[in-house]
Amino acid sequence: MPIFPDSLKPLEPGDVVGVAAPASCFDADLFEKGLEALRGCGFEVRVPKPAYLRQGYLAGSDQERARAFMELWEDPEVKAVLCARGGYGVLRILPLLDFDRLARTSKVFVGYSDITGLMQALMERCGLPVFHGPVITGLGRNPAHAKSLARRLSGEWPSEWGLEDPYIITPGSAAGLLAGGNLATLCHLAGTPFQPDFAGKIVFLEDVGEAPYRIDRMLTHLRLCGMLNGMSGILLGSFYNCGADGEIRRVLADRLGGLGVPVLGGFPAGHGPENKTFPMGTPVKLDADQASLTFRNP
Amino acid sequence: MPIFPDSLKPLEPGDVVGVAAPASCFDADLFEKGLEALRGCGFEVRVPKPAYLRQGYLAGSDQERARAFMELWEDPEVKAVLCARGGYGVLRILPLLDFDRLARTSKVFVGYSDITGLMQALMERCGLPVFHGPVITGLGRNPAHAKSLARRLSGEWPSEWGLEDPYIITPGSAAGLLAGGNLATLCHLAGTPFQPDFAGKIVFLEDVGEAPYRIDRMLTHLRLCGMLNGMSGILLGSFYNCGADGEIRRVLADRLGGLGVPVLGGFPAGHGPENKTFPMGTPVKLDADQASLTFRNP
Repeated sequence: MPIFPDSLKPLEPGDVVGVAAPASCFDADLFEKGLEALRGCGFEVRVPKPAYLRQGYLAGSDQERARAFMELWEDPEVKAVLCARGGYGVLRILPLLDFDRLARTSKVFVGYSDITGLMQALMERCGLPVFHGPVITGLGRNPAHAKSLARRLSGEWPSEWGLEDPYIITPGSAAGLLAGGNLATLCHLAGTPFQPDFAGKIVFLEDVGEAPYRIDRMLTHLRLCGMLNGMSGILLGSFYNCGADGEIRRVLADRLGGLGVPVLGGFPAGHGPENKTFPMGTPVKLDADQASLTFRNP
Repeated sequence: MPIFPDSLKPLEPGDVVGVAAPASCFDADLFEKGLEALRGCGFEVRVPKPAYLRQGYLAGSDQERARAFMELWEDPEVKAVLCARGGYGVLRILPLLDFDRLARTSKVFVGYSDITGLMQALMERCGLPVFHGPVITGLGRNPAHAKSLARRLSGEWPSEWGLEDPYIITPGSAAGLLAGGNLATLCHLAGTPFQPDFAGKIVFLEDVGEAPYRIDRMLTHLRLCGMLNGMSGILLGSFYNCGADGEIRRVLADRLGGLGVPVLGGFPAGHGPENKTFPMGTPVKLDADQASLTFRNP
């Protein structure tokens, strides 16, 4: 039975998909290829002009990026918002966004990596589900990924997801809303007004290009700042270019294995070769024994 | 007039200098060279056996590193504690240290980089001054640095320190206790019980090997979590291998220039070629207009 978050409308052919650039500026060729792949899935793709702004490594000033995001979100013709790229920059605009206004509209939103900060805020401050999935430049690199993204956003969804290559750090099962995202980004929310509340949640974590000692430092930070207090379970995505598999899994087991909740690794999402689209801010059951994740509406 | 923190005794020839390894394991050759350089300055150098322990990238388990540090600190024969290496690991032992016990003893302590977490805790929880300066493996790389370190620890100190190659981000002058250290390490204290209290302080910051957008992310994090609220001034050390000078200075100016306090860059300390030894947790006057730092006892 297909599962799609109750409060959102699945996309239909011809729907307008808007593109936001709340973070880094991006490579124009990859971006155009990504847009093309998205159009090839039958959507009308709209890129407001501010997305093309540049200010150093950012896609425009903080004010410009925040305003462009608000406008795109509030455009009633836009049925879904995808992100041009992650990188960095969301942290700078979080204080400039009006979440009360954003909460008045619910629509499909997709992102990952640095976009984690925005996704967490949309989930917690607006009560909205969001989708963890590719950005436009990622689709430019892997145009074939656009088709599976489009299927997901159109509501085609397996309710149960078995992991093909799982590793179990702590057995058991747990239920809760799915939350989390990029580990480094979550660390940089620690102690801020945007620190996530993971109590009762299944926490998804992934990262890229960080040495094992740095992953250790980040996880130790999450523990020390209380961000992991009361969470129900942990789902690990890819830790891509983060050192040898064996070493990074030892670090993950050392830092997350003694927390008294099920911890399941090998979920094919994040910066690795596979970055499947899945909803967050929606209820899931994590079963580490069966190495499966079950999505369900409340 | 030489200035040495009031509450500490300058070292004398023949004094016992103890070596702690609260963080990463280290290269044995560099370490031995560093010890040799230190002995060459006339100190008796003591390395307790636990310093040589290894557990992955750490110099022993958390319990072993914490216990070894407590024992070395409480050894009455040891007049000063230097660190084998920074790297990573202090964050893991902070909750295991007994700061009430540590506060009963005051002695010379030197470190930087990852040791920042321990230095901040000794300053804030024990009310002790500490020294920002080389670790043993650093002395192994630059044995010539041992002589200037030894002079500083022996109380030979210029009260006023003019910067040779300064850059002024915000003019003005300010006074306060000197605090801070490695920027990345400070970020990973955000939201934890060990988050520094910089109110009224002159905050020293330095880092190594982080791209400009990452330095931006860290400084934005410090701002958002309130760590910089109420601080009196900012002193910038080296940002070594953090991108082109011009770009990193633009990032520092963008993130620190609008905070309403003097910000002076170019202090020759941190991971760069020069890592001068200076006291923290002691009163200083920062004069951005004159590009100088004046150390003074209360």
